[in-house]
Amino acid sequence: MEFIFEHEMKVRDYECDLQGIVNNANYQHYIEHTRHEYLSSRNISFAKLHDDGIDAVVARITMSFKVPLKSGDEFISKLAVQKEGIKYVFYQNIYRKSDMKLVLKAVVDTVTLINGRLGTCEILDAICQ
Amino acid sequence: MEFIFEHEMKVRDYECDLQGIVNNANYQHYIEHTRHEYLSSRNISFAKLHDDGIDAVVARITMSFKVPLKSGDEFISKLAVQKEGIKYVFYQNIYRKSDMKLVLKAVVDTVTLINGRLGTCEILDAICQ
Amino acid sequence: MEFIFEHEMKVRDYECDLQGIVNNANYQHYIEHTRHEYLSSRNISFAKLHDDGIDAVVARITMSFKVPLKSGDEFISKLAVQKEGIKYVFYQNIYRKSDMKLVLKAVVDTVTLINGRLGTCEILDAICQ
Amino acid sequence: MEFIFEHEMKVRDYECDLQGIVNNANYQHYIEHTRHEYLSSRNISFAKLHDDGIDAVVARITMSFKVPLKSGDEFISKLAVQKEGIKYVFYQNIYRKSDMKLVLKAVVDTVTLINGRLGTCEILDAICQ
Repeated sequence: MEFIFEHEMKVRDYECDLQGIVNNANYQHYIEHTRHEYLSSRNISFAKLHDDGIDAVVARITMSFKVPLKSGDEFISKLAVQKEGIKYVFYQNIYRKSDMKLVLKAVVDTVTLINGRLGTCEILDAICQ
Repeated sequence: MEFIFEHEMKVRDYECDLQGIVNNANYQHYIEHTRHEYLSSRNISFAKLHDDGIDAVVARITMSFKVPLKSGDEFISKLAVQKEGIKYVFYQNIYRKSDMKLVLKAVVDTVTLINGRLGTCEILDAICQ
Repeated sequence: MEFIFEHEMKVRDYECDLQGIVNNANYQHYIEHTRHEYLSSRNISFAKLHDDGIDAVVARITMSFKVPLKSGDEFISKLAVQKEGIKYVFYQNIYRKSDMKLVLKAVVDTVTLINGRLGTCEILDAICQ
Repeated sequence: MEFIFEHEMKVRDYECDLQGIVNNANYQHYIEHTRHEYLSSRNISFAKLHDDGIDAVVARITMSFKVPLKSGDEFISKLAVQKEGIKYVFYQNIYRKSDMKLVLKAVVDTVTLINGRLGTCEILDAICQ
């Protein structure tokens, strides 16, 4: 599958833990932010969706951690997305910028709640490949 | 001023940064959580207040950091609160449980927004000393 | 598999995001904290392990999100652990305390780095079922 | 006092809380990151300082919150720094990019620990105005 969006970021020191590497939970932040930036690049606001009663929520996430990011590292977060049934499945990799080594490989299944109930959303259908 | 509420917590390792001590921003989390637990002890839900159009927001915060907390430390977070004009002023200290050394001394000025405008709120007036 | 450890926690409001529910990344924090509390219950300090050159790191994580936690919710985080080859595999479920509904089902593969290289660690072997 | 460094950032949705605005503790993250980026612009690595036994720690922080940042907001974080006795005092303002309104006004007193004891550090002296 081909990545259709990428977002560059840099590790912030407060994201590192006592092991001196980025704490795992922050990768979930990184890939969430990348999804929202992708939406934003398609003129969709995650916050506005919520205000309109449309909540995209994560149903399942799988992450493989390959190389840890450290203080000062820059990285590129890439994204692909496919509709599978009622799910939007995001394929998200993170690469360390200095050598393009694979840092993280993630698959994120999201579903859409319309006013609290599972539903489909044309706005989100339009962002799939 | 006498403390009227206390809440006991324990450092979580993800709250420590690469210096091996609790990252400063987490103390703001600790004292916010203590304020909300205090509200909760008085049967006030911060989330419900928000749903009712009442937002208590921090206008100003001063924190003095005395002794850093480390992995595994237990601590006690104490609170006093006084109404001063339209502000609710929280006096909040954190003590390390093992030796009751002062960890943090904070003063937090909060104001109330009613549907987005500065206002007063009887529900919150009732929690002051 | 039988759970051998449980740890009770309560949602802190700062863990909720603009959707009004706990942000997904915090579940990774919750289950990390549970693993470290389990180590601690067996007299093993994650921070001390690190100081001794032993780093337990997450290689892979799978999380299924069932019911979202909200402001004020109390929950119980349960853990089982098995050695599989050089991996320690943690099975971790979170239940909402009010009705014991399943909130999260996670499988966490961890490996051990001894001074930066993959290795095995008798201290950690002893915590497996 | 004149600002000598600025760093541009954008709100990430996970930094917003159930009030729909950036949670206060994140401003502390923003200004910490700005200080470290300033050090980095002067070829000083916060992480390397720590490895060398030099820890810059925050002794006192005062923050006035003026206008809250929301989902999608871009902002500019500005910094000035002065040596006062053994303290490095950072003056840090954050402005919302869309209208340059003042978001946050902060004063951060830091001190230097050399192998755990209060000390002075020529490397850090060189970054002051």
